[in-house]
Amino acid sequence: MVSRCQLDDIHASDGHCSIEGTLDIIGDRWTLLILRDIFRGVRRFSQLHDDLGIAKNLLADRLSRLVDADVVRKVGYNERPPRYEYRLTPRGLELSPALVALMSWGDRWCTKGEPPTVLVHDRCETPLEQLLLCPTCSEHVEPTHIRSRTSGLPA
Amino acid sequence: MVSRCQLDDIHASDGHCSIEGTLDIIGDRWTLLILRDIFRGVRRFSQLHDDLGIAKNLLADRLSRLVDADVVRKVGYNERPPRYEYRLTPRGLELSPALVALMSWGDRWCTKGEPPTVLVHDRCETPLEQLLLCPTCSEHVEPTHIRSRTSGLPA
Repeated sequence: MVSRCQLDDIHASDGHCSIEGTLDIIGDRWTLLILRDIFRGVRRFSQLHDDLGIAKNLLADRLSRLVDADVVRKVGYNERPPRYEYRLTPRGLELSPALVALMSWGDRWCTKGEPPTVLVHDRCETPLEQLLLCPTCSEHVEPTHIRSRTSGLPA
Repeated sequence: MVSRCQLDDIHASDGHCSIEGTLDIIGDRWTLLILRDIFRGVRRFSQLHDDLGIAKNLLADRLSRLVDADVVRKVGYNERPPRYEYRLTPRGLELSPALVALMSWGDRWCTKGEPPTVLVHDRCETPLEQLLLCPTCSEHVEPTHIRSRTSGLPA
């Protein structure tokens, strides 16, 4: 199990790790499409293969990397013959906001007309809105009011 | 000015465009670090060069691609000698949630101890929380309650 990104030692001191480390794990196109499918409940090797049209060796490679990075885990669902599915770990589940944000931007800027998918609330089917909340002011914060603070010290 | 991603024609029909198209524009490590800096107010070529330690030819290439993709625009701030800075377009500004999400995940899973930066509300300095809101139910929706609906039809 890997609990830290491999770039720690190289980048911990220059402050670039947060984005670089994330991309090092999920910055590959197939990896993101696989994760999107797993979030949607497409979890078995054969289902992923059929849904994505990805070559089996590439799919096996990407899944193996995701398991090594502790983003998904391999769980048996059949004993004879042995069959497995891939489920999100807590670390993987926390990628949800990143996938939602990347999809939303692509939906808005990279599609003709209707976006290919819409993310909705399971209970009422209302399209969801991603936002930043300030817990102190109890208000939605626009991008122009975000400030970046370095390592606990005021910027 | 490019208002659609270049992968439209290839991917519009297979539903993969939203994430692939996004990564095609911002999936490069330097590009994301440059965007992060521009969001923080580091907007001039020389400032970006100093802050990131990136080679000048790479920086010029990435900035030129971002201008071509209508994510940033080049604005003159000095006439003699001519000097420019790079500002986010409306399309670029909407990348804020994606950058926030990628940074937050990296902060949580790819750093030792303190994350390198914390995003706070400019007014009160409280660390911000990214969440998904259902406008109908007025509640925060957890990843397990997100459903994906295809092109206006129930999934």
